[in-house]
Amino acid sequence: MDVQPSLIGGEWRAPESACKSFRAVDPSTGEAIGPAFPVNSALELEAALASASAVADELAAAPVARIAAFLDAYAHAIENDAATLVALAHAETALPGETRLAGVELPRTCRQLRLAAQAARDYSWTHPVIDTGGGLRSHYAPLHKPVLIFGPNNFPFAFNAVAGSDFASAIAARNPVIAKAHPSHPATSQRLAQLAHRALQHAQLPSAAVQLLYQFDSALGLQLAGDARLGAIGFTGSRHGGLALKAAADRAGIPAYMEMSSVNPVFMLPGALAERGEQLAQEFFASCTMGSGQFCTNPGLLVVPDGAAGDAFVGNALTLFAGAAPGVLFSRGVLEQLDASVTALRDWGAVCLTGASSAGLGYRYRPTLLQVSARAFLKNPRELQREAFGPTSLLVRARDTEEMLAVAASFEGNLTGTLYSANDGTDDAALAPLARALRPKVGRLIMNRMPTGVAVSPAMNHGGPYPSTSQAGFTAVGMPAAVRRFAALHCYDHVTDTLLPAELRDRNPANIARLVDGHWRDDDLATAGSATA
Amino acid sequence: MDVQPSLIGGEWRAPESACKSFRAVDPSTGEAIGPAFPVNSALELEAALASASAVADELAAAPVARIAAFLDAYAHAIENDAATLVALAHAETALPGETRLAGVELPRTCRQLRLAAQAARDYSWTHPVIDTGGGLRSHYAPLHKPVLIFGPNNFPFAFNAVAGSDFASAIAARNPVIAKAHPSHPATSQRLAQLAHRALQHAQLPSAAVQLLYQFDSALGLQLAGDARLGAIGFTGSRHGGLALKAAADRAGIPAYMEMSSVNPVFMLPGALAERGEQLAQEFFASCTMGSGQFCTNPGLLVVPDGAAGDAFVGNALTLFAGAAPGVLFSRGVLEQLDASVTALRDWGAVCLTGASSAGLGYRYRPTLLQVSARAFLKNPRELQREAFGPTSLLVRARDTEEMLAVAASFEGNLTGTLYSANDGTDDAALAPLARALRPKVGRLIMNRMPTGVAVSPAMNHGGPYPSTSQAGFTAVGMPAAVRRFAALHCYDHVTDTLLPAELRDRNPANIARLVDGHWRDDDLATAGSATA
Repeated sequence: MDVQPSLIGGEWRAPESACKSFRAVDPSTGEAIGPAFPVNSALELEAALASASAVADELAAAPVARIAAFLDAYAHAIENDAATLVALAHAETALPGETRLAGVELPRTCRQLRLAAQAARDYSWTHPVIDTGGGLRSHYAPLHKPVLIFGPNNFPFAFNAVAGSDFASAIAARNPVIAKAHPSHPATSQRLAQLAHRALQHAQLPSAAVQLLYQFDSALGLQLAGDARLGAIGFTGSRHGGLALKAAADRAGIPAYMEMSSVNPVFMLPGALAERGEQLAQEFFASCTMGSGQFCTNPGLLVVPDGAAGDAFVGNALTLFAGAAPGVLFSRGVLEQLDASVTALRDWGAVCLTGASSAGLGYRYRPTLLQVSARAFLKNPRELQREAFGPTSLLVRARDTEEMLAVAASFEGNLTGTLYSANDGTDDAALAPLARALRPKVGRLIMNRMPTGVAVSPAMNHGGPYPSTSQAGFTAVGMPAAVRRFAALHCYDHVTDTLLPAELRDRNPANIARLVDGHWRDDDLATAGSATA
Repeated sequence: MDVQPSLIGGEWRAPESACKSFRAVDPSTGEAIGPAFPVNSALELEAALASASAVADELAAAPVARIAAFLDAYAHAIENDAATLVALAHAETALPGETRLAGVELPRTCRQLRLAAQAARDYSWTHPVIDTGGGLRSHYAPLHKPVLIFGPNNFPFAFNAVAGSDFASAIAARNPVIAKAHPSHPATSQRLAQLAHRALQHAQLPSAAVQLLYQFDSALGLQLAGDARLGAIGFTGSRHGGLALKAAADRAGIPAYMEMSSVNPVFMLPGALAERGEQLAQEFFASCTMGSGQFCTNPGLLVVPDGAAGDAFVGNALTLFAGAAPGVLFSRGVLEQLDASVTALRDWGAVCLTGASSAGLGYRYRPTLLQVSARAFLKNPRELQREAFGPTSLLVRARDTEEMLAVAASFEGNLTGTLYSANDGTDDAALAPLARALRPKVGRLIMNRMPTGVAVSPAMNHGGPYPSTSQAGFTAVGMPAAVRRFAALHCYDHVTDTLLPAELRDRNPANIARLVDGHWRDDDLATAGSATA
């Protein structure tokens, strides 16, 4: 069988003869599907990096209208190709075609690309600051170096290395992208890259601005991640893989934005359970098993009070979990990792209420509930907050608010933390101290809804303290903030107006918001040229 | 002689018996001066970290008025104590008392503290973003962990670990600070810490919010820098020390903002030299020898064209450098390092025009000019852009613009890059390509002035690409941007108004600028409560 080409240096490049290759697998059957894709060689990685570096300055200097045109055209092409893309992604991931891929994720992906186009066009990510008296002007600017993006297994569109939020952010900041597809969905990634490649040509941008690699040996990956020609790295995936790449990048001084792992603790306060426990069990079950629980923000740890309302909630959840069909996981690796995590949690004292085993054809795993007392949890908090990626949650049963606070204090960094409280105010006394304890541990503090909804909003933070991500000051979702990860701060000191970037010139190119002498304004500078005389 | 106490856990703590100690040295004589200061022990470091961690939540929750009151009171106390502080700093650093310490650096330090107070009070560093429809609100928030700050030798006030820009920034973001004084000016640092300690009490802030250590063994320093209880590290100093601390911090996922080294290239275009070469030689000489050249932004590398105007410029500069008195360096270590760097540059082919030797009492070094052809530079660009910290510059003689461009392309990351061009437009053809080549290599691009002036402005970037700093997206000078280094991004998702931080509530607490649904506004939310209903 022919091995598919990679997108390198602006062309679809045939694989080297005798290259290693791999095929996608239908997770619902465990059978290999589709064509063979190459394991990329050191020469191919070098060619990708060299050609991306060669166009970095050109891309940085490209008119923003072209950058925006590319992102818009790409979004449009994805919509036009939706049926094919959804079929490919469904086959490679077993995610529901209509309700998830076509109905939610593909539109979200296109929306992200268009918001990135908007951010490129309106310069909002550049945060222009002008000090007219001091003759100083600064903004966020392109890195002038390629961004290497590693996509995760769990969003074949919305976090795809060649179409997702990291991709859109890096391109909006006018940086070339070297996309490393997740090997669990190579055909989906290839199809997206084909559309991106054509959209680049349509927008008259350098065709080496977007490249696609499928897979490489981890030693080569670490070498690439530590190559000083890179401007930054975006990664979504496992903690193990993320930390190894981060270490390589750190040694070379390359900013690495890694989204790694999170158990996303949820606190169910007693009043909320008394008031609407049955409904909350439903919410919890739906959130934890959607997409077979393979979300970064899956509610993997629930703190539930002892007592009748807590017991009833657990009973309701148990009924739902036990009655549900096994969830299909993305790969044998995910299945094995989940099984290892569940086993480890049990070894550390968690009791299995239901599930905890694989089931049937392909990579299926039963929805799983584990339970442990807060007292036992607090003896081994590190081991018991291990992420179990899949339709799995650990219930931590707390005697009182004090124990809940102690559990909150024991958490490492997480993407999200959630508090459910009674509408009638019953829980209010416990709420404030719990919110205070949870706040510094999480990127997003949520009330009365499950963490799995990550809205694409300028006020979103899809990020959190280490080790949920590598940089607690940045979000991976939400424009324009996500763009700023792939930017450098540039200052101009008494530089002639004609040599300034558009958004810092006296004449405001598009009524963009600029912080001028301490005030946000969108007009031209009144004293044209005064600061650069 | 008694060994001085350290400020640990809110108290001046006597040194351990039999602790190692050291004394400051008058750099103009090489004689030890003042009392003995302790080399801090592992127990003391642990006590500092534990007590700072214990007050981190309290400080994060402190009213901003108290934070601002502390910073203002501290600035006021420094001004009142100016005579003593200047005398101490002059004795320990040999920097000129009137023209530098009293006239420039002390006022600048107080101004920074007051601008930090203003940033704390007006929440400008928190960058509030509100999405009313989505129920999402986000801002930059305190780290809820201590910040460890390493001060440099070259600014006993303005970058002092217990009074400078890093300190002011970390406190403005409501984080406790563990200050590691530079051991070349322990008495100055102690005096500042005494004032800070009293100002904390005056402002009713936890007294463990500011701590002072003087010195510790490097193994202990690396252990501290890698302790996960830390929220961040600020460092100004050598590349060697900075990279070692960064590696320790990286392994623990601690953000480390290191300002390390920079040669700050300056390009003298032919027209500028023909027009005002003699004046430029004066400017260059003054900038390069001021403070004995011990500035992060010292012009350490000048690209000068071949030909008559270039030769005349070099001749004029040579006369000034050769006729100037030796500069006093801060320490034997600085002297030895400078001598080693100058020797290395000569070994790689640079020719000494003047200087390149120590001179007389104390740590004196002759103002030094080295020269090399661009052609030779381009053969060993890495070795020839080695920083020589002191009154020293390397002249790189270029045949034409092409050679200048090649030299610019060979630079690693620098804090600044400067272009001098003719007023009459003669240089304009060369200017644009040179500016383009230099731009991605530097944090601040400057025209027609020396880089040593680092204005405290919101549009300043005192930062630059690796390895001049560790994070090209952040500045160490300029409020409120410098504050954001010591902050985490926090999002609130449908959180009740009363549980929100002040600057994200419906009612705008102080008419602060907030990005509400895409527009900057400073009023209350019209639909009070709608997003949190």
